[in-house]
Amino acid sequence: MGKSLLKDVYRDSLSLLTDLYEITMAYAYWKDGLQDREAVFQLFFRKFPFGGAYAIAAGMQTAIEYIENFAFARDDLEYLTELKNPAGGPLFEIEFIEFLRDLKMEVDVDAMEEGTPVFPYEPIIRVKGPIICAQILESALLNILNFQTLIATKASRVCRAAGGDHVVEFGLRRAQGIDGAISASRASFIGGCHSSSNVLAGKLFGIPVMGTHAHSFIMACDSEKEAFRSFAKFLPENCIFLIDTYDTLKGTERAIEVAKEEKIKLIAVRLDSGDLQDLSNAVRKMLDDAGLFDTKIMATNELTEQLIADLKAQGAKISIWGVGTNLVTAKDQPALDGVYKLSAVQGADKEWKYRLKISEQVIKTTNPGISQVRRYFDDKGYVADMLYDENKGPGDVIFHHTEQGVKREVKKNWRHKDLLVPMLKKGRGVYPFPSLEQMRAHTYQELDKFPTGMRRFNNPQPYFTGIEKNLFDLKLHMIEELS
Amino acid sequence: MGKSLLKDVYRDSLSLLTDLYEITMAYAYWKDGLQDREAVFQLFFRKFPFGGAYAIAAGMQTAIEYIENFAFARDDLEYLTELKNPAGGPLFEIEFIEFLRDLKMEVDVDAMEEGTPVFPYEPIIRVKGPIICAQILESALLNILNFQTLIATKASRVCRAAGGDHVVEFGLRRAQGIDGAISASRASFIGGCHSSSNVLAGKLFGIPVMGTHAHSFIMACDSEKEAFRSFAKFLPENCIFLIDTYDTLKGTERAIEVAKEEKIKLIAVRLDSGDLQDLSNAVRKMLDDAGLFDTKIMATNELTEQLIADLKAQGAKISIWGVGTNLVTAKDQPALDGVYKLSAVQGADKEWKYRLKISEQVIKTTNPGISQVRRYFDDKGYVADMLYDENKGPGDVIFHHTEQGVKREVKKNWRHKDLLVPMLKKGRGVYPFPSLEQMRAHTYQELDKFPTGMRRFNNPQPYFTGIEKNLFDLKLHMIEELS
Repeated sequence: MGKSLLKDVYRDSLSLLTDLYEITMAYAYWKDGLQDREAVFQLFFRKFPFGGAYAIAAGMQTAIEYIENFAFARDDLEYLTELKNPAGGPLFEIEFIEFLRDLKMEVDVDAMEEGTPVFPYEPIIRVKGPIICAQILESALLNILNFQTLIATKASRVCRAAGGDHVVEFGLRRAQGIDGAISASRASFIGGCHSSSNVLAGKLFGIPVMGTHAHSFIMACDSEKEAFRSFAKFLPENCIFLIDTYDTLKGTERAIEVAKEEKIKLIAVRLDSGDLQDLSNAVRKMLDDAGLFDTKIMATNELTEQLIADLKAQGAKISIWGVGTNLVTAKDQPALDGVYKLSAVQGADKEWKYRLKISEQVIKTTNPGISQVRRYFDDKGYVADMLYDENKGPGDVIFHHTEQGVKREVKKNWRHKDLLVPMLKKGRGVYPFPSLEQMRAHTYQELDKFPTGMRRFNNPQPYFTGIEKNLFDLKLHMIEELS
Repeated sequence: MGKSLLKDVYRDSLSLLTDLYEITMAYAYWKDGLQDREAVFQLFFRKFPFGGAYAIAAGMQTAIEYIENFAFARDDLEYLTELKNPAGGPLFEIEFIEFLRDLKMEVDVDAMEEGTPVFPYEPIIRVKGPIICAQILESALLNILNFQTLIATKASRVCRAAGGDHVVEFGLRRAQGIDGAISASRASFIGGCHSSSNVLAGKLFGIPVMGTHAHSFIMACDSEKEAFRSFAKFLPENCIFLIDTYDTLKGTERAIEVAKEEKIKLIAVRLDSGDLQDLSNAVRKMLDDAGLFDTKIMATNELTEQLIADLKAQGAKISIWGVGTNLVTAKDQPALDGVYKLSAVQGADKEWKYRLKISEQVIKTTNPGISQVRRYFDDKGYVADMLYDENKGPGDVIFHHTEQGVKREVKKNWRHKDLLVPMLKKGRGVYPFPSLEQMRAHTYQELDKFPTGMRRFNNPQPYFTGIEKNLFDLKLHMIEELS
């Protein structure tokens, strides 16, 4: 309980978990004497995942731990010392390696709380500090936050489809590697899942774990009934029988017989193949006829949010959903397109110089400055988000980020909160992370405050997110100057 | 160099990296006194990934390390002790926890060598040993081998498309978590990539690392030319200039100017946006006109094997390909459907009882017994694979696994090799793993021995893989008995 993904799982700091170019850029800054110039980087995504209209921010605690623990270990430095350039000489000079040895990530980090609904172009994390530090962190922050945000979003969709039914995350065996499983379990729980099959995730994060037996257990015994009986005898309080090894309806009969003979409380039966709507209705009738009204039906087998929604609409009698591959790999879109962009840098005179990366389309051009995200609400819930520059302050007019012409005026009765909260000051933690259970509650509570149309799977209604007028004008001006 | 993914990265054994049901099944076996019954489990996939006609086996070294290092740590056991059943009592009795404390994975493991082309239903790993051990390993083996095999296969396709050009794996920032990146770098290299941007993968596995600068570096400097100049000055032997921050052709001009002024060898210029075919031709002309004939053009930006093949067919002048998200997440199919199935178990009399899991279709029914995979070849290359049972021995007739009627007779001039090689005997390593570089060479060498039609992206020609006649007959007989 209360363990840390990074400190309790990994042996050392993961400071080399970075793209080489972060270090070659750091070297160039250091050689040029620019390593202490202050810079601001903002991490945001551009496109909604899964054709939806929101994402759920996740991974901040892992990211903050990464930064706090950042230090090059001796063998990291040895490795960097041995790297060669294409001409055969050392890639870095030894004084730079010595500089890295003492490098600490003394940066200010403001980020969204885990479980916060978030929209394109809104920074979910903002790093401000010496450019060499803020740059080196890029790859790891993207890795951690892209993935956990993606999976928390997918989990939120799956759980919305299940409409309050128990959803267990089941994906370890098909996840993308060891941490692809562990981080996915963590993010799935934040996004809304009730439990996981992954025991290590249970140990690390206190996520409730769940699981009984596989087809192999039934097959190892001399008969299906003998297998059920063995479980009833040895784990009488924890019986969920898998009934489809040979024939689902015969399996149901045997499960009922064993439950009665052994006088156990049969928690559930599990379906893992066949038509889940038809079978769940047939199985439900058999259970009810036998008086097993409290025995639930659990379903697994390539479930997605769309399939769960369909099955529920068709009246499937399923109330526990085991979701694996489609959840932990986000199979229909296995990567969030998050990017980490420089938005301001100080000159030699310590004046901030704003930066943006232009693109053919204004909308794809990044936002300059030191952004904060303000979320407005009235008595009914959230009404609009405004990206504003902390130096310029918030204004009264918001331009919708995708369509220049659409604007909204901030109304008198709107209240607001700012979403980026300080988590690190000069590299030291200033944010007490809530428990994973509290993050999960945050996801549910916050989503409920948005218009319901935003949560539809098909043609969801976009929520209004935009840029404060002064910042917007500045951005257009900068684009003109660069073009 | 020569470090281990598990021992050098993770703090403890990852013995709890398992689904809870593996442990509840283990408990039932133990309660029943069956924990030492010998069993055989086989891990195989059913469907080719990516619409192709082969996969590349990978991850065995990681999997073997996992098994060799398996031991429940004290805090693992404490966690298991604290688990409750739904009625509130302890899930496991304390004597079981004590049994687990001393549990070693004394299993025999036979597996394919990494880099071996493999086909559906062929076991890539076979575990034989006490059922409680072989069962507990299921989730972790699937996690490790499904993912690395998936990515090695994807890398092989990408590298085939690139036709010998340099391919650098670039995926850390969009990978599925920390190990989603590290394992992907490893598997990508085995599958054929030449280098990686991931420094940690370089340190752990000796993979060559590559990378220079990002858009943010250009933007942090006061002009693009100043940024190039800084690199030329401080990293003169390692210059690959990113030329599309503002305008690709102007960027090319500036790159050429700096290369001449600073008298550096410009290794390459990198394109990261726009039409890669048009731009690469225009940039090539500018470089040639300036006499920079040896400066290569590198391309990045959502590359896939199909896009690379298209660009090459259209005459794009690109010879270094940076492939990220689509490679490391296997975006078009982010999970291999590998399964781990019980195929034999000993009775109380120590006689083997063969097992299969039936399905509506014969082809989806698993294979019973203790399988070996024999690969036949003649002077021209590989001609057919035969799955046979080690107890029954190989025969002379192979039935094609998907179509019962198609058979081949083993010809006199065919030679053969068996693909599953012993890697563990009673839990002790008996296989000297080759270097990652040798595994990568194995991938290329082996693939070249198959008919070229198998490697097409569209409508590839299936390679003949089948089941030895006696095993096939036994299987049909068992299906009849169970139906």
